[in-house]
This record gives sequence, C-alpha cells and structure tokens, in this order.
Amino acid sequence: MRFDIITVLPGLLESPFAHSILQRAQKKGIAEIHIHNLRDYATNKHKSVDDYPYGGGSGMVMSIEPFAACIEKLKAELEYDEVIFMTPDGETLNQRIANQLSVKKNVIILCGHYKGIDQRIRDIYVTRELSIGDYVLSGGELPAAVLVDAVVRLIPGVLSDETSALSDSFQDDMLDAPVYTRPADWNGHTVPKILLSGHAGEIEKWRFEQALERTKTRRPDLLK
Amino acid sequence: MRFDIITVLPGLLESPFAHSILQRAQKKGIAEIHIHNLRDYATNKHKSVDDYPYGGGSGMVMSIEPFAACIEKLKAELEYDEVIFMTPDGETLNQRIANQLSVKKNVIILCGHYKGIDQRIRDIYVTRELSIGDYVLSGGELPAAVLVDAVVRLIPGVLSDETSALSDSFQDDMLDAPVYTRPADWNGHTVPKILLSGHAGEIEKWRFEQALERTKTRRPDLLK
Repeated sequence: MRFDIITVLPGLLESPFAHSILQRAQKKGIAEIHIHNLRDYATNKHKSVDDYPYGGGSGMVMSIEPFAACIEKLKAELEYDEVIFMTPDGETLNQRIANQLSVKKNVIILCGHYKGIDQRIRDIYVTRELSIGDYVLSGGELPAAVLVDAVVRLIPGVLSDETSALSDSFQDDMLDAPVYTRPADWNGHTVPKILLSGHAGEIEKWRFEQALERTKTRRPDLLK
Repeated sequence: MRFDIITVLPGLLESPFAHSILQRAQKKGIAEIHIHNLRDYATNKHKSVDDYPYGGGSGMVMSIEPFAACIEKLKAELEYDEVIFMTPDGETLNQRIANQLSVKKNVIILCGHYKGIDQRIRDIYVTRELSIGDYVLSGGELPAAVLVDAVVRLIPGVLSDETSALSDSFQDDMLDAPVYTRPADWNGHTVPKILLSGHAGEIEKWRFEQALERTKTRRPDLLK
C-alpha cells in the first residue's frame, strides 16, 4: 500500500515513520510512504502557500494552487483510490474505516494548517474527509500519522503476530480484558488467581466477562 | 506547563515536538516536554520492559517495574496533577478535556505498547485514562503527541493569534464554516459572492448559517 502525504511540515513526519511498525512495514516493502513538501509546489516568488481569508476574520487559509499542482502531478503518474483530507469536521475515524482503507492500494493524504484549506480543494479533489477525534490540533500531520499507523498495522504481514490485531479492542466492538505479567506479586499487589490456574477454558471465560464488564462500564455505546 | 512522557520509543517523538506550535511553545518557555526512555528504568540484565501475559494468549505485556521506577523518580522531584495513560479503552479525548488539561501544571503521560500494560500500573499510578479515538494504534506515542498538541495550543501565548483558537471547530460545539482565499476565480471555480461583498454583518450571518448547516449534516450529535 502506498501513501502520498502532502504537508507544509515534512520534517514533523520524519520520526513517526522511522520507528516501530511503520518502519518495519516499509522495510518489508508492504507499505510505501512518500512525503511531499507543499512549498515545492508554490508558484509565487515568496513560496507562500496561504493567504488571507475572503470576508475577513482571523487565521490564514491554505491556497488552492499548490495543492492542485501537487495532486495533479501525482495523479498523472499513478491511479489513486482516495484523496483524504484530515480535518476536524470530517467523518470520525474508527476501526471499521481503518479496516476498509487497509485493502486500498494508493492513497493521497492532505494535511491542513492554520485556519483551514480553501473549500474548493475539498470540493474538487477530496474524496474522503476524516477526523481522528473531536479536538483541534495545530495541523493535519499528526492525524495523518495516526491514520497511516492505524491502517498499516492491519495489512497482513506487518504485525509479527497476526492474531494480535484480531484480538484488539474494537475489532469485535468490545474493549480488551485487563492484562498482567510477572511478577505475580509486586509489593503486595497480586495478579488475579484465575490467570495462574492453567485452566484455559476458565481463563477465556474470565477474560470475556472482564471485557464485557469493562465495555459496559466504560463504553456502553459500543454494545448497541 | 510541563509534560513528562514515558515511552519505549523516545526517537518516535523527536520530530513532532521539534516543529510547529510545540517547538514555539517550548522556545517561549510556555511548555516543557521531557521524554523518558522506559528502558533506562529496566532492572533486569536484558533491559527488557515486557514479558508474556499471565494466562497465555498472543502479544506481550509491559511490566510494572520499569514504569513504577520512572514514575516514583519523577514524583520524588515534582508534584504532578495527573498521570495519564493513553489507551483505546480510556475516556475519549475531546475539546472540553483539552481545555481542562490546559490549566494544569505538571502532567505525566504513559505510552503503552504491544498487548497493553500490566493492569496494576493502571490501578496504582494512573489518575486518568484517555483515548484519542475508537481505533487501535501500534503504541501510545502518537496519541501522546496528539494530546500534547491539543492542550498546548490552548495555553495563552502559544498561538500567535488568540482569537484563532476561540473560533475553532468544537469550541462552541459547532463545526467551522467553509473558508476561501485568493484567487477569487480558479479555473471557473469561484468564491461565494457574499465573501467579496465587504458587508461584515452579512458575512457573519452567512458563516453562522454555513457552520450550522455543516454541523446539522455532518455532526448532528454536536447540536444536542
């Protein structure tokens, strides 16, 4: 799967893609991540990519031209399944959307900044608008990294232990049961006895009950 | 405001905190971000920070000891308002929580990995569990960066234009109206005439209607 990310802050995305599963997925050739500096597509002499909003008000608005130039160049070279814009007013990302996207081949991701991007970019080019949650961030770079991470780890071959992704929170609309590891007693804080019993069936039952209880308490909305 | 982030992947967080408003906030002395490598607190000879889960199953579980050692050390030096654990089964982050946290002084953030962290860390040390959304990521580092970004930009003095944060999506439970900048006509795609009219009152009315309409269409839940 290939991601082309268009941003004014390419440096911000360096270290998230150079570690953990995103690094591993790229080394294995399962994922390709290309970062494009929007400023390279600015046409005016100041290399500016934003301008004042029509109608006044605070904040700057990202101009249509640099985004259009970069997207057109990419599309001339390759066919893309989606042009995704990360924005707080987009559809809220969830595990089902991550699953859907993990079977796509080529995806462009636009990172906004400042007060937003010219609405015409959204109207003309964007096929899907995604938000990672109901909060405002300083730009679309972290949301883009979050989206890529959520999607790439679902591609077969990326996680070393594939059953691990299947038993994650949300894959079955349930939160996970609590987990424990050694020592069994830490300053008097002990591990639930059932987990030390060796009775696989009983442990599975306990875990299901704990997961259900936790979901009921914390996220009853998931059970509907 | 000071953040102490405990992670097994300190390198992953380098570039997000070295750019944009997070860099600016640190330079201005408004925010301090300290990254702690969990491995420095491992006590065994292999410097391992995880172990097999009690009761069997896939994935590794992060051990209590290194987290406990790091948290105890920090707490011996400073008083902390919150010890936050980033986890998909935590309370879902929203703009109200970001606002609440932006008036705190010292906060510890724990980044989980693998199958999760020993439940006893959560029971003993953690004061607040936060999720950035209903999807699973490969670790808590990107969520920690998202949280810090969402919170720091709300601290007075961080954004160059303070009215900008107040007019963001979600601050008033409404999405933003569309924004436009030059050129007024791009290949036949024009800006709404009202924005070029110069009638401040009419523009404000149009923006409110657009914001309301967008919120009704996209996020009716916010209007309840």
